Amino acid sequence: MPFTDEQIQKKIDLKTKPIGALGQLESLAKQIALIQQTEKICINSPTMLIFAGDHGIAKHGISIAPSEVTTQMVQNFLHGGAAINCLSRTLGWHLNIIDCGILTKISHPNLINQRLGSCTKDFSHTDAMTPEQVEMGLKLSESLINRLHLQGCNTIGLGEMGIANTSSAAAICAVILQKPASQLVGKGTGINNEQLKLKSDLIQKALDRTNSLNPMDVLQSLGGFEIVQLVGAILSAAANKMLIIVDGFIVTSAAVIALKINPDIKEFLVFAHSSQEKAHKDVLKYLNVSALLDLNLRLGEGSGAALALPLLQSAVSFYNDMSSLSDLGIEI
Amino acid sequence: MPFTDEQIQKKIDLKTKPIGALGQLESLAKQIALIQQTEKICINSPTMLIFAGDHGIAKHGISIAPSEVTTQMVQNFLHGGAAINCLSRTLGWHLNIIDCGILTKISHPNLINQRLGSCTKDFSHTDAMTPEQVEMGLKLSESLINRLHLQGCNTIGLGEMGIANTSSAAAICAVILQKPASQLVGKGTGINNEQLKLKSDLIQKALDRTNSLNPMDVLQSLGGFEIVQLVGAILSAAANKMLIIVDGFIVTSAAVIALKINPDIKEFLVFAHSSQEKAHKDVLKYLNVSALLDLNLRLGEGSGAALALPLLQSAVSFYNDMSSLSDLGIEI
Repeated sequence: MPFTDEQIQKKIDLKTKPIGALGQLESLAKQIALIQQTEKICINSPTMLIFAGDHGIAKHGISIAPSEVTTQMVQNFLHGGAAINCLSRTLGWHLNIIDCGILTKISHPNLINQRLGSCTKDFSHTDAMTPEQVEMGLKLSESLINRLHLQGCNTIGLGEMGIANTSSAAAICAVILQKPASQLVGKGTGINNEQLKLKSDLIQKALDRTNSLNPMDVLQSLGGFEIVQLVGAILSAAANKMLIIVDGFIVTSAAVIALKINPDIKEFLVFAHSSQEKAHKDVLKYLNVSALLDLNLRLGEGSGAALALPLLQSAVSFYNDMSSLSDLGIEI
Repeated sequence: MPFTDEQIQKKIDLKTKPIGALGQLESLAKQIALIQQTEKICINSPTMLIFAGDHGIAKHGISIAPSEVTTQMVQNFLHGGAAINCLSRTLGWHLNIIDCGILTKISHPNLINQRLGSCTKDFSHTDAMTPEQVEMGLKLSESLINRLHLQGCNTIGLGEMGIANTSSAAAICAVILQKPASQLVGKGTGINNEQLKLKSDLIQKALDRTNSLNPMDVLQSLGGFEIVQLVGAILSAAANKMLIIVDGFIVTSAAVIALKINPDIKEFLVFAHSSQEKAHKDVLKYLNVSALLDLNLRLGEGSGAALALPLLQSAVSFYNDMSSLSDLGIEI
């Protein structure tokens, strides 16, 4: 017999605190309890997945760094020296790095090979991917998520690395939100005004070329190898009733696509932070969700999602272990 | 030779990330590095201190619960069943509960006895404390902090429990910010409009009676047994160069007083969260500080401060262990 919304809310309201006093921790606990449908809820083997891929559009120089930096940062992840390594060690995430298609192939025992190519096509004038690449991307991440689920993981964090992927994310969101490119394009990790104008113009060209609102078509036209695999990961994790911690703008753009494909997955998503990227707050508003953290982050690589884990663990802890008012004989 | 602001900033800017991309984590790391003046920074034996005290003004029924609930909640803390117990276990805080003067004396091996009485006087018509109580309160918490410092603790979290203590905090902030009571009085943990009007009127009476802006006089006139000890804890922790994590509105009011006594302590304060209590955001603005978290909490008992610890640990971790761009041969 399932636990209803009301039963879970009552359990929270009878804890030794004023009604609602734990704010967003209460919403989190309720969300997890509704998903897990158990008396005691839990976060098991939280696993951070960093999907990396390169983007053809990067050749226009619309990022602070060239595509080669994607590979260099993947090497940094593999050697344990990036921000997400530090955060994962500190906060208790298992860290998985997935090569979805970066410029240079790397051989490393800890790199998961799910390459769809070495770089997407320049989406300002042609589709970023083939239909086969989209299909393969969704399948590969589905299989990865199923494997994690079998190993007992019930919570994933999603992050990404890919020079120029804010362009892909902005284009996707512009199509789905039906806004012009200029409203969704931001400075990424820190480009100048000239680059920003070029980025906006290139994306607008792509939008003028993209007529379909079908999420699979949008992915094929504007997506990235990491973005399609993020979409697959979200859909599969939801199918496995896992909790999905969404990082910043790029992962949110994947969530926008996933929600178009299947609106029922929303209950599994936790939006970890509101990034400094201009469009992110607009997209969160469009999705009618609020993010847990607002720390002026604009790094990507799952950093915001990583920081949300202690909040989830805190929500689980109060839900499972806090006394109820009746235990203390308090009537309020 | 001390590490300068510029040296620390340079170390942060050379990490493998765009400049500023870790947002408030960067400010935190810098703050800690400036305090600790060591190559590697650290959070040692983080200790949460919950100061509890009762308030004479509570007899007017301006809270959702009577003063007896302070004692019941202290018992809850001692038995491990409150929110702060769950958060402390989950996040790795040592938890100390200090009786600063609650209605009923409790004997428990884990309760630290620093009683200044059983309840302050009703400050709506007379001074809450005697000068001797203020002095004793400051001394007792100074000695507690010195003890923790000797034991190797370099980070404290500050929380409180005391029915009606938002009244005391609002009165203190109204005097220091030179605002009428009505602008600083809020619903605490959830009173109705009639109680809110009475609370505001009683505090305004107290403000009309309080002429001095001297922080010691303000404490004596309007403070609480827990608030004076919070002030002492802040001053002593800063003197020991400890990091001080400030919880919500009540602890912030103690910080307001401590900053009036010694403005130099500001560099040791971290404001953990922005509470739902109306005045808290105004007071943070007056202090020209921004809080790390905004999770709609309005519980007190150190809950917001507790949740900030992983952010501090994350800041420490990236500062100490993240690669620099030159390690990767990246020039940006």
